[in-house]
Amino acid sequence: MRILILGGDGYLGWPTAMHFAARGHEVWVVDNYLRRRMSLETSSEALLPSPNMQDRSALFEKLSGFQIRPIVGDLRSYEVMNSAFEQANPDAVIHYAEQPSAPYSMMGRDQARLTLQNNLDVTFNCIWAAIERNPGCHIITLATMGEYGTPNIDIEEGWIEISHRGRADRFLYPRAAGSLYHTTKILDTDLLWFYVRTYALQVTDLMQGPVYGLVTAESQASDQLLPNFHYDDIFGTVLNRFLVQAVVGAPLTVYGKGHQQRGYLNLVDTLRCVELAALTPPTAGELRIMNQFTEVFSVLALGEKVREAAADIGLEVKLEKIPNPRKEKEEHYYNPAHTGLTELGLKPTLLTQDRLVEMLRVVLRYSDRVDRRKIMPRVSWR
Amino acid sequence: MRILILGGDGYLGWPTAMHFAARGHEVWVVDNYLRRRMSLETSSEALLPSPNMQDRSALFEKLSGFQIRPIVGDLRSYEVMNSAFEQANPDAVIHYAEQPSAPYSMMGRDQARLTLQNNLDVTFNCIWAAIERNPGCHIITLATMGEYGTPNIDIEEGWIEISHRGRADRFLYPRAAGSLYHTTKILDTDLLWFYVRTYALQVTDLMQGPVYGLVTAESQASDQLLPNFHYDDIFGTVLNRFLVQAVVGAPLTVYGKGHQQRGYLNLVDTLRCVELAALTPPTAGELRIMNQFTEVFSVLALGEKVREAAADIGLEVKLEKIPNPRKEKEEHYYNPAHTGLTELGLKPTLLTQDRLVEMLRVVLRYSDRVDRRKIMPRVSWR
Repeated sequence: MRILILGGDGYLGWPTAMHFAARGHEVWVVDNYLRRRMSLETSSEALLPSPNMQDRSALFEKLSGFQIRPIVGDLRSYEVMNSAFEQANPDAVIHYAEQPSAPYSMMGRDQARLTLQNNLDVTFNCIWAAIERNPGCHIITLATMGEYGTPNIDIEEGWIEISHRGRADRFLYPRAAGSLYHTTKILDTDLLWFYVRTYALQVTDLMQGPVYGLVTAESQASDQLLPNFHYDDIFGTVLNRFLVQAVVGAPLTVYGKGHQQRGYLNLVDTLRCVELAALTPPTAGELRIMNQFTEVFSVLALGEKVREAAADIGLEVKLEKIPNPRKEKEEHYYNPAHTGLTELGLKPTLLTQDRLVEMLRVVLRYSDRVDRRKIMPRVSWR
Repeated sequence: MRILILGGDGYLGWPTAMHFAARGHEVWVVDNYLRRRMSLETSSEALLPSPNMQDRSALFEKLSGFQIRPIVGDLRSYEVMNSAFEQANPDAVIHYAEQPSAPYSMMGRDQARLTLQNNLDVTFNCIWAAIERNPGCHIITLATMGEYGTPNIDIEEGWIEISHRGRADRFLYPRAAGSLYHTTKILDTDLLWFYVRTYALQVTDLMQGPVYGLVTAESQASDQLLPNFHYDDIFGTVLNRFLVQAVVGAPLTVYGKGHQQRGYLNLVDTLRCVELAALTPPTAGELRIMNQFTEVFSVLALGEKVREAAADIGLEVKLEKIPNPRKEKEEHYYNPAHTGLTELGLKPTLLTQDRLVEMLRVVLRYSDRVDRRKIMPRVSWR
């Protein structure tokens, strides 16, 4: 297949590019290094410096023999989007090109505006490039489980049948997110759903939980091929932050009571989920939505797991509850469905003690690079 | 009260400004004449040329003694929004400043982009001006019944209690609109709801049906004070178009089967609804949603009413079904609630034969100005 990856420099975009290339697909990646600039501006750089896309692609080709074609450009410009579609003529477009940080989106007006405009403009351009150039291509968007929030009813996969006063109909599952970033993903879904049913586009919307992990099959050839790994309060996800805290002997910072439950998944499962989606496109006019996570944990349970795994390799770790910088429910019902991707063939990579130990050992190799000042929350919207 | 009206040059904005000013409120209006420019560019000018805001405000003050303070500027610029809030220091902001045409939003990529960016940016700036300058002010947004689409269950006023697998919760009523314009209103609602619950803003979202009518109490002093009245396919609403067609002896063009049902209201009721909302602000952190229409008609029934009223004054009128340029259901269930505004005190101005005749007589005075080329649909997204 011909695969165009928007946001190909990111934590997920880059390993996705290698994953598809290593399986013989023709891969193009587009990025404007927005996340690198935001990381610099917020003093939130990743654990390891990553070579730029050209250099990483060249190294990957040298080591694996597979090619990744990089395009540097801002996809908020339709000319850039159009040119990327023209070069790649994609069977599938994988859209990661969004400002991905909830805390960043809540820092202030300018950051909120950038998040809203960047995320909506890129999605809009992607939709229109598909309409104008390539209506048969399959758009795969990476959304978030955070769109649903924490309702008091079971969370279904994107859609819900509502019975009301003796009649029934099927609707997009209602959404209510906890940050502006997550809210822009709701707007993306609304926009996609309108254009899908109006112009018979083919879209898969993957509602992803927080991802953890660093190493994938393709990055084992060189640490220079590792994805950017964030452990900071702005771009880091919670389990990655816990791993770093455990390694440097800092307490694992649990926000609030720690009873917040979320559905998590390993980075390698993200790659497999996106691949499974690409291999089985939906029909024209279908917005297929799947919930992309493998296990539900509370933040506290996640911390306990890391503590136990760390003890296994002689690291003594404490949990520390700190005031929650986020506006979110700390006690809530949580029962989200997630059968769509396993039905397509996903075999979950569960968070076992062994896998945690393995991840801790990788992070240990870079423990001298950790800047502890970047860990504690610097943005609050409580 | 101190009232700031965003989009004060529009079909609804201008008569709203006069309505509040004539009741002793202090009124500021802001507009960048976007609708006038789009009308010119699409050859869709209003029936009557309107003086600009400065001239209309001066005339209104001369005739009534009440002041309207005009500000010319683009509210997509935060500086303009901030300065308007600074000058007006409003108790209530009434937000009409959106690209309001469904067909315009479906003409092509550029028009879609303008609609998306304009409508979202202005709403975003309005939210942030309230957060930063005036968190106690009441934001009243004019949304649309079109956000709901035509679901197979009763339409409630903005919210719905969903029972699902033995549990229940309250959600925003699910939305699925028929044009990009209507979809941007869904995005507005999502954005407002996020910021309302995060920063305890006070917002009323009025889900309005198609408005008809021309004359209001304040415009009777001079035809120069009439709102811009569109009968064209781009900016006109269906009943206003029928009135013009009846007057010039053109058939009333019914899109498709004409069984599409919508909730309609008279322009004078729009003014009263907005006034009632302003006089009874919601509490901090509340997104109050009310459905703003007074009667439900099918397009065919509306056409029949106009035909009968026209016959009363000797005009012979025919209905003509033409291919529907819109992608919408022509047979559907429709039972929307609308008790919120009557509970606040609205006494509906119903569409009687007498009122239709009265409107036909007003339009008759300007029948020589009608350009029949502007009536038939020029944009289709079927």
